[in-house]
Amino acid sequence: MRTVAVLGSTGSIGRQALEVAEILTGEIKVTALAGGRNIELLAAQAKKFHPNVVAIAAKEQYQALKLALTGTGIKVLAGEEGITEIAAGPDSQMVLAAIVGIAGLKPTLAAVKAGKYIALANKETLVTAGSVVRQEAAKSGADILPVDSEHSAIWQCLRAGRREEVENLILTASGGPFRTWAAHELMQVTVQEALSHPNWKMGPKITVDSATMMNKGLEILEARWLFDIPLAQIQVLIHPESVVHSLVEFVDGAIIGQLGLPDMRLPIQLAFTYPARLKTPWPRLQLAERTLTFEEPDTKRFPCLRLAREAGEKGGTAPTVLNAANEVAVTNFLSGQLAFVDIPKVIEEVLAAHELMGDVTLETIFFADEWARDQTRRVMHKE
Amino acid sequence: MRTVAVLGSTGSIGRQALEVAEILTGEIKVTALAGGRNIELLAAQAKKFHPNVVAIAAKEQYQALKLALTGTGIKVLAGEEGITEIAAGPDSQMVLAAIVGIAGLKPTLAAVKAGKYIALANKETLVTAGSVVRQEAAKSGADILPVDSEHSAIWQCLRAGRREEVENLILTASGGPFRTWAAHELMQVTVQEALSHPNWKMGPKITVDSATMMNKGLEILEARWLFDIPLAQIQVLIHPESVVHSLVEFVDGAIIGQLGLPDMRLPIQLAFTYPARLKTPWPRLQLAERTLTFEEPDTKRFPCLRLAREAGEKGGTAPTVLNAANEVAVTNFLSGQLAFVDIPKVIEEVLAAHELMGDVTLETIFFADEWARDQTRRVMHKE
Repeated sequence: MRTVAVLGSTGSIGRQALEVAEILTGEIKVTALAGGRNIELLAAQAKKFHPNVVAIAAKEQYQALKLALTGTGIKVLAGEEGITEIAAGPDSQMVLAAIVGIAGLKPTLAAVKAGKYIALANKETLVTAGSVVRQEAAKSGADILPVDSEHSAIWQCLRAGRREEVENLILTASGGPFRTWAAHELMQVTVQEALSHPNWKMGPKITVDSATMMNKGLEILEARWLFDIPLAQIQVLIHPESVVHSLVEFVDGAIIGQLGLPDMRLPIQLAFTYPARLKTPWPRLQLAERTLTFEEPDTKRFPCLRLAREAGEKGGTAPTVLNAANEVAVTNFLSGQLAFVDIPKVIEEVLAAHELMGDVTLETIFFADEWARDQTRRVMHKE
Repeated sequence: MRTVAVLGSTGSIGRQALEVAEILTGEIKVTALAGGRNIELLAAQAKKFHPNVVAIAAKEQYQALKLALTGTGIKVLAGEEGITEIAAGPDSQMVLAAIVGIAGLKPTLAAVKAGKYIALANKETLVTAGSVVRQEAAKSGADILPVDSEHSAIWQCLRAGRREEVENLILTASGGPFRTWAAHELMQVTVQEALSHPNWKMGPKITVDSATMMNKGLEILEARWLFDIPLAQIQVLIHPESVVHSLVEFVDGAIIGQLGLPDMRLPIQLAFTYPARLKTPWPRLQLAERTLTFEEPDTKRFPCLRLAREAGEKGGTAPTVLNAANEVAVTNFLSGQLAFVDIPKVIEEVLAAHELMGDVTLETIFFADEWARDQTRRVMHKE
């Protein structure tokens, strides 16, 4: 029985993880939960799963959560310290890091330092602090297990050969809702349109990232650290049907791919039960009568992919700046303050103004993150 | 440096294997060759690769081969005994079993008994004598490595999980040149048409087997023994583009597939260098702009698939009879003596007349093989 802390349990990944946990009784036990602001859902989850401890990020909601859990015997914590205490604490052998955004970095790093199994769904951890995380994991013996469907696919395919036999990782991308739109049509994209992903049901931020293809850019940057492979060996391939979740090309020309329905519960379960695979009750992919297509990505219409690769090649704090600028730009797009096609323009301008800090530490990351957020707002207001 | 005996070196697989051996100097050394009748090619191969020993199946050509190799210092053998001596002998650690037909069985079994690495391209070995081969391999410690592209694909995909986590093996099939033909059109198939395979360049027998789908039926029967899995867990999926060479479905719903160009040199090399993967100089699969489609097989228009599964379920000597009846029927189709659509009819009639011998030994196999060949001729002459 593996004990699991679910950080970000009220978000999209967190909720699906708890669905998986429900069918994995006997295999895993949810011993800790942490949520952001959704106190009703967090309290309901706690009453259902009976963890030892629950934390809420919003400190002002501490008393309300404590009240809601009166008589349950569940310990209640609050704030970043509370969540970090759960991440590093003795209640769990595994931490599902599913907090969205840079807020996920400190708790995840605390879990890494504690030498736990990390089921990693928070993108920012590796995008901003990949080198730090790898060093700390090497010291503590933490195992970092991908939860993202693409990285999980690559992780599965890598088993078909030795690490030194890998020629390329091939991350597939649906191409998002605007894959076939002409450049001039992209200028008219509405928020509604950007939130209509053809294959996956995800939160709004990641759905927009999928539409701009920044999502795939961030995944390249993660894959680099997750699999310890140079960026030049990480390719992106458009695959609109989202059936082949990613592939690995080996030096002999063999390409191994992982296929399945677009269902996050599958990679979540694999991380939970790793290294075992357990039977699942969910619908299965039937390949018969399916048509799968593949295309090269177009970085002219979707410059975010190019920007991410460039930031990764620069290294240091550049990926942190890319990520922060993107987060602010997407928030402004979602609130109707920024045009879809201006998202990459703003990010590029912020990156150009950034004085690279080569030394990646939590301090430089948070400094660069703050700077990039301010700078993004300045760039947007100038326009 | 691994020493390799190539049995069937003048056939399609044998010739491609020697192409692979040429680029693998330093990794493998061809120390023995055996061919059937093509003395010019066999002598030329011997002069190029300088093996210790060469055998020719046709005994009447022994003197001519000896003459052709005068002064080379290469030992010359002949007949089934000669080939079996090579298979079991000390000159090679690995035997590529690429002799076509039941003639490949005895030499391959000799190599299995000798505890060698067996790169297996001869279908009849496992189809007819799967249980014997598995027992002997368990005793001798022989490793049986698939060379067929479908089985090689499955072998590669199986690495992505544990054996007890496998739910289905999914063998892909191009569907052959008549995949889209209506039943009444199949009645008019010419030899020329049957020999035009859309994707693979292969010998005439296997090309016709691909057109009738008996090829896939025989592969199911091989896969059963190769991977020690019940027939009910081996599926066939039509995939006309022959890019996905086969797949494995695990219990959690993850499907792992192996993709590549249709090029036999890739699985041959993997068997040669196993467990390592080495860099290859051949063209690579580019997925971009590819379309991959999948369909259920139609056992009404292609009854050979059903016949093979039924023979496999009966077990004993039934697969041997299926194979022998098919071989005779295909020979007669190729010489214009039998209609394409009558191939499965003849096989079904022979199978129906067969008194099953449950005890599978070399004796019962060869007896059933002979009986089936005679019976097939009798059935065809009645019609």
